Amino acid sequence: MKFVTATIHNDQFIGLVHGDKIIDLKKAEKDIFELTSFPKSLFDCIPLGDKFVQDVKQIVDKINVEEGSESYLYQITDVKLHSPIPRPTKNIFCVGKNYRDHAIEMGSESDVPEHVMLFSKAPTAVIGHEDKIDPHLHLTKELDYEGELAVVIGKKGKQITEEAAMDYVFGYTIVNDITARNLQNQHKQFLLGKSLDTSCPIGPYIVHKSAIEDPYDLTVTTRVNDEVRQNGHTKDMIFSIEHIISTLSQGTTLEPGDIIATGTPAGVGKGFNPPKFLKPGDTVEVEIEGIGKLRNRIM
Amino acid sequence: MKFVTATIHNDQFIGLVHGDKIIDLKKAEKDIFELTSFPKSLFDCIPLGDKFVQDVKQIVDKINVEEGSESYLYQITDVKLHSPIPRPTKNIFCVGKNYRDHAIEMGSESDVPEHVMLFSKAPTAVIGHEDKIDPHLHLTKELDYEGELAVVIGKKGKQITEEAAMDYVFGYTIVNDITARNLQNQHKQFLLGKSLDTSCPIGPYIVHKSAIEDPYDLTVTTRVNDEVRQNGHTKDMIFSIEHIISTLSQGTTLEPGDIIATGTPAGVGKGFNPPKFLKPGDTVEVEIEGIGKLRNRIM
Repeated sequence: MKFVTATIHNDQFIGLVHGDKIIDLKKAEKDIFELTSFPKSLFDCIPLGDKFVQDVKQIVDKINVEEGSESYLYQITDVKLHSPIPRPTKNIFCVGKNYRDHAIEMGSESDVPEHVMLFSKAPTAVIGHEDKIDPHLHLTKELDYEGELAVVIGKKGKQITEEAAMDYVFGYTIVNDITARNLQNQHKQFLLGKSLDTSCPIGPYIVHKSAIEDPYDLTVTTRVNDEVRQNGHTKDMIFSIEHIISTLSQGTTLEPGDIIATGTPAGVGKGFNPPKFLKPGDTVEVEIEGIGKLRNRIM
Repeated sequence: MKFVTATIHNDQFIGLVHGDKIIDLKKAEKDIFELTSFPKSLFDCIPLGDKFVQDVKQIVDKINVEEGSESYLYQITDVKLHSPIPRPTKNIFCVGKNYRDHAIEMGSESDVPEHVMLFSKAPTAVIGHEDKIDPHLHLTKELDYEGELAVVIGKKGKQITEEAAMDYVFGYTIVNDITARNLQNQHKQFLLGKSLDTSCPIGPYIVHKSAIEDPYDLTVTTRVNDEVRQNGHTKDMIFSIEHIISTLSQGTTLEPGDIIATGTPAGVGKGFNPPKFLKPGDTVEVEIEGIGKLRNRIM
């Protein structure tokens, strides 16, 4: 189940990927079941959890057997995809240096963290698949990519144990943690260098967790203009998703719709000698097995 | 003009301090002018800027001459004050080590920053005046206070110059940037140690900027159980409010209702030898000249 937030004919809707089509879920619910039970945004559906997923399954089952009732089916190429949560209600949580080889490429062995390193990106930075990334040339010549698996929290919780952590996950998405390396270094704390407008592409989908058998068995590939730069694997995370959720929630309440980017593998632009930073005209694509491809152009 | 968000008889309202009373602004507008133009929250009024302030002035002028029509006037002691913005729509921006003596007490001369250091606190941490601070004893024995002048952004802007920065300020409030020092150190990036639930008391008021002649001529005093711990002065900020707003907005859009805590002066618990951390039963009060007193108990 791949959920999207999309627009067709200037109307924003909650969609579900269905082959090469997108189901407009609210429209389908109304047409098939004469019901209007879904809230108006994907963000508001997420807290409904299993109930929402079951309702969506019923719609999909009907579509599989019905013919002709296609007013709620769009060609995926006809819609504009947004970030599945276009405007999160708080900053995006991000884990720093959660892959050993990446920590080392950013400095040395001593950069491998002993404790989860957490920082945030402002929600004003969020854009969707195929949206443009502003290079902010007046601020940086060191714009870099970081392809990351992200988890979307499904229900409110605090002091969550590692054992229970997966119950609090709704699904997965992709975050490209675009970073101005000069600002990240200059300002010590990462917030500013990580919060430039358009520096947080998310999506295109939120994939429900039931579709991902093992989140630690996924390749993470980042390409710039078709050149593979990052070719990582989620099995190499230093701190597991369960550990991150548990650690963060020991004192901080997590809420439905919270996004936690779990860190990037080796191969960022800064890690090359000489560095390979992003420049106007570049296309950067993050692909995670089973999750999708998140592509953006710098311009 | 001191604005509050408050509750009386379980109804939340937008209030204005008027001597020892609070004006319920929406009720007053309706009773006096038979108008209901104000949005429902202070957060939604802030973007209206001068228009909102003018409308409020008209109400205050009427109240000064009218007698008897007091259904919209409450004793300040009868209402429960909340954070003026109870739930910000993004993390609170915070400036680290913005007073030289504080930077040194946290380490040494080398900790005095050359560039603005920006981090954030999760909006789930926000509480109001007189709300309880959870000591999170299972996580920390090093809970610390940081009294700070905070600015509230009044209008959307990007690439704001230092000269124009004050046009983007709606007013001022107080933030107590409660910090778990062990977590702040352990996790390197500050987010986690600064985002415990209840660790961001804000308020009690947002004071409109017209009431503050010079934001660099204010004493900042923090008391723990009536013992003065911080006795700073905003003239000692390393980076001015104008510089902070300009630097942050060069790449990041600022929005109405954004809160930027401008850093704390010397005298935090960690700065004493031996350290004086907060413990259950302590009362911590941050007072800023012309802005107010923000008091909370640890329990």
